[in-house]
Amino acid sequence: MYLSKLFIPITKDLPTEAKIKSHQLMLRTGMIKQSSAGIYSWLPLGFKVMKKIEQIVREEQNFIGAQEMLMPTIQSSEIWKESGRYDDYGEEMLRIKDRQGREMLYGPTNEELITDIFRSSVKSYKSLPQLLYHIQWKFRDEIRPRFGVMRCKEFYMKDAYSFDLSDDEAKKSYNKMFFSYLKTFQRLGLKAIPMAADTGPIGGDLSHEFVILAETGESQIYADKNIFEIDLNNYKFNDQSLKKMRDDFSQIYAVTDDKYKEEEFNDKVKKDNQMKTKGIEVGHIFYFSDKYSKPMNCLIDDKDGKKTSVKMGSYGIGVSRLVGATIEANYNNDVMKWPKSISPFDAVIIPSISKNNKENLEKAEKIYKELQKQNIDVLLDDVDENMSNKFKKHDLIGVPYQIIIGSKSDGINLEFKELNDKSELLSLDKIKSKLKN
Amino acid sequence: MYLSKLFIPITKDLPTEAKIKSHQLMLRTGMIKQSSAGIYSWLPLGFKVMKKIEQIVREEQNFIGAQEMLMPTIQSSEIWKESGRYDDYGEEMLRIKDRQGREMLYGPTNEELITDIFRSSVKSYKSLPQLLYHIQWKFRDEIRPRFGVMRCKEFYMKDAYSFDLSDDEAKKSYNKMFFSYLKTFQRLGLKAIPMAADTGPIGGDLSHEFVILAETGESQIYADKNIFEIDLNNYKFNDQSLKKMRDDFSQIYAVTDDKYKEEEFNDKVKKDNQMKTKGIEVGHIFYFSDKYSKPMNCLIDDKDGKKTSVKMGSYGIGVSRLVGATIEANYNNDVMKWPKSISPFDAVIIPSISKNNKENLEKAEKIYKELQKQNIDVLLDDVDENMSNKFKKHDLIGVPYQIIIGSKSDGINLEFKELNDKSELLSLDKIKSKLKN
Repeated sequence: MYLSKLFIPITKDLPTEAKIKSHQLMLRTGMIKQSSAGIYSWLPLGFKVMKKIEQIVREEQNFIGAQEMLMPTIQSSEIWKESGRYDDYGEEMLRIKDRQGREMLYGPTNEELITDIFRSSVKSYKSLPQLLYHIQWKFRDEIRPRFGVMRCKEFYMKDAYSFDLSDDEAKKSYNKMFFSYLKTFQRLGLKAIPMAADTGPIGGDLSHEFVILAETGESQIYADKNIFEIDLNNYKFNDQSLKKMRDDFSQIYAVTDDKYKEEEFNDKVKKDNQMKTKGIEVGHIFYFSDKYSKPMNCLIDDKDGKKTSVKMGSYGIGVSRLVGATIEANYNNDVMKWPKSISPFDAVIIPSISKNNKENLEKAEKIYKELQKQNIDVLLDDVDENMSNKFKKHDLIGVPYQIIIGSKSDGINLEFKELNDKSELLSLDKIKSKLKN
Repeated sequence: MYLSKLFIPITKDLPTEAKIKSHQLMLRTGMIKQSSAGIYSWLPLGFKVMKKIEQIVREEQNFIGAQEMLMPTIQSSEIWKESGRYDDYGEEMLRIKDRQGREMLYGPTNEELITDIFRSSVKSYKSLPQLLYHIQWKFRDEIRPRFGVMRCKEFYMKDAYSFDLSDDEAKKSYNKMFFSYLKTFQRLGLKAIPMAADTGPIGGDLSHEFVILAETGESQIYADKNIFEIDLNNYKFNDQSLKKMRDDFSQIYAVTDDKYKEEEFNDKVKKDNQMKTKGIEVGHIFYFSDKYSKPMNCLIDDKDGKKTSVKMGSYGIGVSRLVGATIEANYNNDVMKWPKSISPFDAVIIPSISKNNKENLEKAEKIYKELQKQNIDVLLDDVDENMSNKFKKHDLIGVPYQIIIGSKSDGINLEFKELNDKSELLSLDKIKSKLKN
């Protein structure tokens, strides 16, 4: 893609309404545009990043055997009355009356709807376990939406639901999701800590939130550094090994401030390993057994032919929120560097262009074509602007690798730079193989 | 995927509420499930097909240089008041009040919102032309939703918008989309006819709808058969050639019943070439110049520095509707056969299984693994059911290729069947290469 053709409305001014750096950066680089309070359009640059995150989430859900489907955004109020949450949910639920006066709502979550689908489809324990998920827009009518995509009204979320015969079986599903979440965040280049959590309005008695480290995070975190030493590769994808994985994580101290007690922290964690930092919640998983299946009469036949309420859990990842969270974790000292796995482009070519000299641009175009042939997704900055401005701009756009066509590049070698690092002179072949890895 | 694990609630009964065959089939094979009037959940089988259609639409939009983005589902009423459509739109618009009493709406289309984004982002003719699109859920509060996903309330649509300096330039964008649409439908295995159309509530003076042939279609069509002789491969992707393409199509008679005159039909089309059939609208494109940009003050500087309203068109494809339309076009004599490009699976393995004989199932599992290694997406019917029932079921699921492991398969060759065709005995290698093509 040529930068001059990309629909990327970059603004030089720091947007005054944006209080945190992800919100600022996303507005400045034209990743998003607010359409009304707490509601955003995703412009091509932001959209590309979000889609890459979505795809990684999807792959890791599929890996554990979850099946993708899609529930609608607009739901009938009836199922929410069945579960008892219609009145409980409060004003954050966007309530709607259709032209015939029927009470509808814009789904803030989908426990009721998936239970409704399940009860009409599955009747026997033989079809269990089941893991279903969808990635769909949700709406919460926040009274004070803020921080851009981090706390907005319309947001993109992956929510999964597990169905099992017994509490014991259900915990196996829970552990699979636990594993899937950690792998997902790892692939996104994020350091995520699973923490035992309260269940809140979703309900149930077992819950973890996944918090990534970011200085500007909303939650204060106290943890033992050793939590990052646990290597997911040491576990196999079977029930026993996944149980051990969750046990291993549970044994290492990690809490948010509502559960923090100084004495306990000092007692359980060696001084050198004590980590006090901030974090952002990016995922939350719940096991709530028959909280929805019982009032909604979602029954299955067990092995003895006896009807029993199916045991359920739900598992959420904020896909749109992760775009902001990744920026919070990676945008430092005025330089944003996207993790390779979700960068909007693999590399950017930055030629030094002047009115009298189009040679560098031509050279850049040749390299551009060569890299495209290798399926490397390249951005070519063909804008007529001085190099110092260009570099500042690309510090914000955040493509991790730059090929600079200017005075330093000689006939054979090109100036190649990884953001936050020094540049080096490399042949195009070497650059190709670096980018392919 | 093993059929026993797939979340596919197949029902044997013909659903009484479904009047047309796509609606019946989608309910019977568990592709969708109604959650309330005109609102559906997409279960894994239906979801897979829709995603494949979406991806083809996307690729053909990207090919012509359109950039993907994503606008939210909930819009502010203010921009609709600016354009003057807020009052015009009537009761099909789902109007919403948020908790602070602000008038919002669930977008039925996006001309206003894209114009709002564009006017704040682009100021100069130098950034033109621009083609932007998104694939997003829309809502129209139909008074009588019917025919399943064909006329529902919440539907998935690709809508694109073009921005040009002049009417002449804008027609070039229009022709690109015209080309993209025909290529899209071709890849979906559909015979689509572009027809000059009225512009309706979108406005403007140039419009085409794309209608695919299906006996159960809602529109009566009168056309010259020669329209199917036009070969898209004869045109190049440049302005001149695309203009010729549209001219060539325009010269061949094709109208819906509102424009049909018997005399004219007999006059213009030879008896042998006269085609009277039914069709389903699956796409609609509009050129409306400054209908939105003028009232919404979306101005750009032209070459002389003079401000002028940008010239716009809009281009819609009903992605969820195409799932139903493809069924209407392909489901005949109780057999559904998906076009290869969007089939939920590339092939299905159907072993004859009995309680005392698991040999066929084991054989099937081996083949399953072999095909998976070749990146062939296979369904394995491991359900313990007699073969006659299995075949009936797979006539509905519609995977185009079957590998049957029963009495006919000998040690070396396997029974291979293309739906609607006779089976033949082929080696696994031959089957692999057939499926890979």
